[in-house]
Amino acid sequence: MTKQERAARTREALIRSAAREFDLHGYTLAKLSAISTGAGVSPGALHFHFENKPAVAAAVEEEASTALRRAARVVYRQGSDALQNLADTTHALARLLREDIVVRAGYRLSCSRGCRTDLNLRQEWQSCVQQRLAEAADEGLLATGHGGQQDLVRTVVAATVGLEALRRDNGEWLSPETVTGLWRTLLPMLAAPGALAGLEPAGSTTVPAARTPAA
Amino acid sequence: MTKQERAARTREALIRSAAREFDLHGYTLAKLSAISTGAGVSPGALHFHFENKPAVAAAVEEEASTALRRAARVVYRQGSDALQNLADTTHALARLLREDIVVRAGYRLSCSRGCRTDLNLRQEWQSCVQQRLAEAADEGLLATGHGGQQDLVRTVVAATVGLEALRRDNGEWLSPETVTGLWRTLLPMLAAPGALAGLEPAGSTTVPAARTPAA
Repeated sequence: MTKQERAARTREALIRSAAREFDLHGYTLAKLSAISTGAGVSPGALHFHFENKPAVAAAVEEEASTALRRAARVVYRQGSDALQNLADTTHALARLLREDIVVRAGYRLSCSRGCRTDLNLRQEWQSCVQQRLAEAADEGLLATGHGGQQDLVRTVVAATVGLEALRRDNGEWLSPETVTGLWRTLLPMLAAPGALAGLEPAGSTTVPAARTPAA
Repeated sequence: MTKQERAARTREALIRSAAREFDLHGYTLAKLSAISTGAGVSPGALHFHFENKPAVAAAVEEEASTALRRAARVVYRQGSDALQNLADTTHALARLLREDIVVRAGYRLSCSRGCRTDLNLRQEWQSCVQQRLAEAADEGLLATGHGGQQDLVRTVVAATVGLEALRRDNGEWLSPETVTGLWRTLLPMLAAPGALAGLEPAGSTTVPAARTPAA
């Protein structure tokens, strides 16, 4: 292993340990000493990679957003129609949030007030929903009866953001079954008559694997 | 003003000041000294009413839950059908969360991990939704097509909890317009054919006034 490889591996271990610490205690109470201990390195090694706690948090957020954006892109490239795509994307993101502590901690950091960077993954998700529903409208797949397109966007955003918020009480809220149940109720509301038949609330494809193998 | 009245007034001022402090800085960073200063009283006066920070937080939660439960009860007694009742209840609770800092701070405290008491208002809301939809089913008002009743309950809970989570970025997410838009999309999904015509997404009644006059 070269020196560069060792450094990259240490950095990755620190990010994962920081994610655990942020997830457990929140940003404010998280301790740098616990992060270096959790990664099995000295405080000096931590400070070689990260100047301070905001820098560690920014790295966790950065990894989380890269993973979430990549998963959304992979689903998008599968080229299914816009509504199916939206359902598939939520399944993929829910899986990442369930399985990857860095994604989970990074998502929460990006949405919390205490540690606000330019990044807000909730707002990014909102743009994604907006775009997919605009595409569905272009493709003639979107229902026109129930309120305008903006109402539909907000309902989908609120319901999916709500699942993540509720997960903090009970992991079941982001399970494949719950996400499927959500789409079972939302798709008939979103799809134009005739467009519903081909849609699969459980997701049309194998959901992309988590970012890294489980530790 | 009697001694008892003065004490009650001081306690109320402390609770309101604590709510502002928790809302601004979160439970962990909130300072008792800032709470007493904000209420215009000495630290000694604070300690006469509350032993420590958890005791102040518990009082804020208690006031919030009393107000939210009372608002739900007032709407329930108006005796409209179960689906309209559910929509009216969310309008009433959204108004309290918008207008009353004690309700807002208390709701968040009850849902956050750092300061967990027995109370979890999110779970209480879930029971309320469950009950109303079961009543709607009993009354023959609930659609039977889109997934089971459990799917419908979860979708309504997720969407409404999501609105409150999103409000932290942007107050518009709990505005009367957004709540109305949510029901404009959800009611056609929830209501049995024929039951939709009489339902009003904007709420059927004057929403009960906030807990206390704005300070």
